[in-house]
This record gives sequence, C-alpha cells and structure tokens, in this order.
Amino acid sequence: MEKLFLSYNQIHQTVKEIAGQIEADGYTFDHMIAIGTGGFIPARMLKTYINRPIIAVGMAYYDLDDNKMDAPVVTQWLDDPINQIKGRRILLVDEVDDTRSTIGFCLERLLRHDPLEIAVAVLHDKDKPKSREIPVQVKRYYRGLKIEDRWICYPWDAQDIWEQDKQAVWADPPTDS
Amino acid sequence: MEKLFLSYNQIHQTVKEIAGQIEADGYTFDHMIAIGTGGFIPARMLKTYINRPIIAVGMAYYDLDDNKMDAPVVTQWLDDPINQIKGRRILLVDEVDDTRSTIGFCLERLLRHDPLEIAVAVLHDKDKPKSREIPVQVKRYYRGLKIEDRWICYPWDAQDIWEQDKQAVWADPPTDS
Repeated sequence: MEKLFLSYNQIHQTVKEIAGQIEADGYTFDHMIAIGTGGFIPARMLKTYINRPIIAVGMAYYDLDDNKMDAPVVTQWLDDPINQIKGRRILLVDEVDDTRSTIGFCLERLLRHDPLEIAVAVLHDKDKPKSREIPVQVKRYYRGLKIEDRWICYPWDAQDIWEQDKQAVWADPPTDS
Repeated sequence: MEKLFLSYNQIHQTVKEIAGQIEADGYTFDHMIAIGTGGFIPARMLKTYINRPIIAVGMAYYDLDDNKMDAPVVTQWLDDPINQIKGRRILLVDEVDDTRSTIGFCLERLLRHDPLEIAVAVLHDKDKPKSREIPVQVKRYYRGLKIEDRWICYPWDAQDIWEQDKQAVWADPPTDS
C-alpha cells in the first residue's frame, strides 16, 4: 500500500482546524479521553486550543514484536470512572479512524459509565469499510481530514525525522498563510 | 524571562538521543509511565525507538484559567498498580525537569508501589535549584539536554506552528546529517 508521509506542522494545523470545528459546533466538554498510545499526541496538541484535562486509556493491538494480536488488550483503564465520566461531557481523541475497532470498543466501554455526552475527534478518518458503527448515542464526530485508505506515516513514528520531512506532503506552510 | 522556541524536529532528534543513552546504559524496562499532560508526547515519541507500553498518570499544577494552584492535583492515577508497577522496571517520562516538584512527587508515589527499578527520562533539565532531590532508589536519570533557566516554548503549545518554526532555534537538520 502506498505510504502517506505527514509532517508535524501539517498535523498541528489539522488539530487547529479540529478545534475550530468543535468551537463552531458549540460543543463544550469536561475532559478529553485520549486512547493510548495513538491518541496521546493529538490530545495534547488539541489541549493548546481547547484547554481541558486529558485522561488516558490504553489499548494494544500489536504485541511488542509488532505482531497483530487476535483481540485488543486494555493496558490501562480509568481509575475513577464515576468522577471522570458519569454525567460528564467527554471528547474521545485518537489518531486515526481506520477499521474503527479501537474507537468502537472504547465508545462502548465508556458509554457503560453513563456520560452525559461523548463526542469523537480524530486526526484522520480513512475512507474504507468500518468494522463497527458509531453508537447512536454519539452525535458528534470531528475529523481533521478524510483520506483514502493509505498507510499513514506519522512524524512521531519516524526513525529519521529529517528524512520524514523530505518525504512529507504538506511540509510547507499553506500558501495563504 | 527570555523564551526558547523549539521545533518539533529538534525535539524528535533529542528523543532519539535519549533512546541512545538508555540503550548504551543497558537499561531495559517493562513500562513507561508518562506524566500527563507534559509527558504524553515525549513518551509516545520515545516508543518509536524503544517499544514498550505507556501507562499514563495525570497531574495538574494550573487550573483551567492557567492560574497556578497551591498544591498539585492528581487527575489520574494507575488503575492497576500491582500489575503495572510492583516488581517491574519502569521509565518515568516527562517533558521538563524544572523545579522537579512534579517528577519528585510522582517518584515518591510510584516507589510506594514497590517497583524493581525506576529511572527517569526528560527532554530538558533546567539548570536551576530544585525543590526536591531525586530519591536515592533512583539510580538512572536520562536528560535530552541540560539548558539554562529559560521559558521553553514547545511546538505543541504553539497557536501558530509556522510562526513557531520561524522563531525556533535548531529548526534545520544538524549540518552533519
């Protein structure tokens, strides 16, 4: 599959646009829930534009040798779901909506803790069949970019960041800036 | 105080150097503990070079209006310290060692869970008086850069990332790359 290399700055710009979508939509939330490890960086970046606490949950689909496992493993869950979720407005943040298995799994588990509302924000939504529907309780879904089904190479996964920038599309500022 | 602007790519390079220090030192660990929210991005970057699970804890020193609070608030703690810490080798990751209050507080709390070993990794260690000593049980401390006491402007805190890059020292590849 063809790879899509992205620069950090382009993703930062994408996060700024997600923040703009959320503000335009009038959604205010109490906490972000970052799905680790992919959601850690996007959530922290988004906090610059919308300053809310970040709570982390951890999911692993690959073992430490990068072999895909049959079922996801929850590596961390909420330590205090009553205070963190029940009756709260939540924004669930991840890097990419690929097959949606991680986001779908987390939404189902978080809904059990009885939030007032959960919305979703992802940097990139791949235009491909999804293994799960977004639950009907989830009314708001913010995506930075909808992209074709390609292998996304995020800058934080680069062994050599200078080489990554050379490969990256959109490494330069938008021409209207 | 004079501000120090850093580019994402420079920090990525710093993380690569921290990974090199850890490998040269022969320290292998079971989990990273990222101190949120500052440690989320460095921990995720480090995972590219040393692939271990990341568990998050959350600490807040500022309220949502950016006023410094009298005492830190723990916004999230471990949900399963027996499995996550007891008898494990841990790497505690944060953005900056400033007065050391956050890192010192977390080390003291984590040591209560009886790890086999805890080491510390930070992007930047400010050369200034610290409010706490590193506990004697902690034998390994990895810093990306030791810097003078300046206001560090991390790229993920930028409102305008292209402007940040213009201000940043070390925005370009090292000349030997």
